[in-house]
Amino acid sequence: MALSEFELIRRYFGAAGAAGAGMLRDDVVLGIGDDGAILRPPPGQDLVAVIDTVIEGVHFPIGSAAAAVGHRALAVNLSDIAAMGATPAWALLSLSLPQADEAWLQDFATGLGRLAGEHGVALVGGDTTCGALAVGIQLLGFVPANGGLRRSSGAPGDWVFVSGTPGDAAAGLAIEMGQAGPGGLDEAWLRDRFLYPTPRVALGGLLRELASACIDVSDGLAGDLGKLAAASGCGAELDVTRLPLSPALIRTVGAEQALERALNGGDDYELCFTIPDARLAEAEARLAGQPTPVRRIGRLVSGSDVKLQRAGAVTGSPHAGFDHFAR
Amino acid sequence: MALSEFELIRRYFGAAGAAGAGMLRDDVVLGIGDDGAILRPPPGQDLVAVIDTVIEGVHFPIGSAAAAVGHRALAVNLSDIAAMGATPAWALLSLSLPQADEAWLQDFATGLGRLAGEHGVALVGGDTTCGALAVGIQLLGFVPANGGLRRSSGAPGDWVFVSGTPGDAAAGLAIEMGQAGPGGLDEAWLRDRFLYPTPRVALGGLLRELASACIDVSDGLAGDLGKLAAASGCGAELDVTRLPLSPALIRTVGAEQALERALNGGDDYELCFTIPDARLAEAEARLAGQPTPVRRIGRLVSGSDVKLQRAGAVTGSPHAGFDHFAR
Repeated sequence: MALSEFELIRRYFGAAGAAGAGMLRDDVVLGIGDDGAILRPPPGQDLVAVIDTVIEGVHFPIGSAAAAVGHRALAVNLSDIAAMGATPAWALLSLSLPQADEAWLQDFATGLGRLAGEHGVALVGGDTTCGALAVGIQLLGFVPANGGLRRSSGAPGDWVFVSGTPGDAAAGLAIEMGQAGPGGLDEAWLRDRFLYPTPRVALGGLLRELASACIDVSDGLAGDLGKLAAASGCGAELDVTRLPLSPALIRTVGAEQALERALNGGDDYELCFTIPDARLAEAEARLAGQPTPVRRIGRLVSGSDVKLQRAGAVTGSPHAGFDHFAR
Repeated sequence: MALSEFELIRRYFGAAGAAGAGMLRDDVVLGIGDDGAILRPPPGQDLVAVIDTVIEGVHFPIGSAAAAVGHRALAVNLSDIAAMGATPAWALLSLSLPQADEAWLQDFATGLGRLAGEHGVALVGGDTTCGALAVGIQLLGFVPANGGLRRSSGAPGDWVFVSGTPGDAAAGLAIEMGQAGPGGLDEAWLRDRFLYPTPRVALGGLLRELASACIDVSDGLAGDLGKLAAASGCGAELDVTRLPLSPALIRTVGAEQALERALNGGDDYELCFTIPDARLAEAEARLAGQPTPVRRIGRLVSGSDVKLQRAGAVTGSPHAGFDHFAR
């Protein structure tokens, strides 16, 4: 029997250090190669399941590097797992490809496998089909029973935080799509922020003990904060002077455009979360002791909608985050 | 906020009787609407995970009825779950659609929801994207710990069985694609066997207690039996005079073509399984007491490859089952 596309992926994926773990782990009773995978959930934990598909020309530019596509397909799912406060465990892959291209598959599997290895994710199953380039990943993880983070459990008075420096990925995508950039190190760094997003899995695990609510920022910070606030039955105030903007972003697009990208750009894969006022000091101390930068940017309030403030004065409402379906 | 496509699906899906269960079940801690679903696995069970994507123009004809597409997307995954001997529980849906069409979504969700309701499957998450019509489903189920069926555990001397009447779906697809058919009831029945395959979930559960190995027949009986035999380190002999051919298939395409369709057609979604000789009488008695027809069609043997026999004499080798990637 000819080596199938999936067998190729498994082989290269294994070379990147992840499938080997999948083969030897006690929690993977039966991996790739049968009609389904048999997996052993740890006792006393809830299962967290997420699914996200990335499509060429919709979620990443046509002709993107295969390693970046493999990284992105897993990263967007790891970001959802992080937002639930969960520890990732097992992935299933559904890959649609126009043709079998061994070099492309090797790079794709390497990009996917490297990130999987960093997060202890075993590839346990999947399928390949002939069609337009699309990568669907279903990722399973765990939280202690009743310990999962939600969007809906914030309350008025809770402080709003965000991780990282939102807006960089949107600027990186614009450069990747051929918009004139300044060149040099800033441009390379911004492109890298788009191509290789960093899912905040360790931060999500810590937030399980600290945050009242959490969402991943994939469609624009203002819109995603709006979703968290709406799910929690609140409004939110966001102080734009406190937004963490990267120096590279400000140098590249200027301060006002940087703010716009940070509020309404997409593809950040950061976490936006809320901390009750009574736990603020404890949370800030513990958050300062971990490697992912976070910043307090606003507060949940009674009412609805997200209001922007500049040093205490309302300056308007942000545009809504974009909807992938309308993209 | 405008009603999203996914919200539409959830609403119509619920109307078909399945999501309501998802909302009220103890095993669904958090369903649709957050970054991920939180699910509570039953203690002492292994998790079985399958993923399969159906694409317009590849796995079903362009312009297929939406209800049939929804049914198929879940049925192909239920068939994989059945082949593992598992009980299905939770589904995540990744839907790519060229445009949002409310009537289409309603019919799609109804087709999907009806089959989900029959099998106790709760839709717990997913996403929609704009793109060519493709439906990916990831389905999770359970088996008692160490109780999952596999392809690889057959042995020489085990008897080979198949459920249903393979070949009907391939003939139904040909009719659906516009090949001249006889019209009338036979044609309608064969088309229905293609459009609305019956996943053999209850049979799979029973086989967990009886069979040595099992595979679902999706790419042609001869090829899929070959996969089971290869995974078990065996060959197989298949007596073509014992193949269960439907009267409608024989009347429509003739006896020789019926045999060809049964051996090498696709899309049957039946189960092919093996029973050790020592348990044959017990298994036949218990299999006779359940509603899905099964028939003994051959035997695993030492060696490799599938050999066809006609009343004991070797008549040749079947063509290989087709590969979806090359389809």
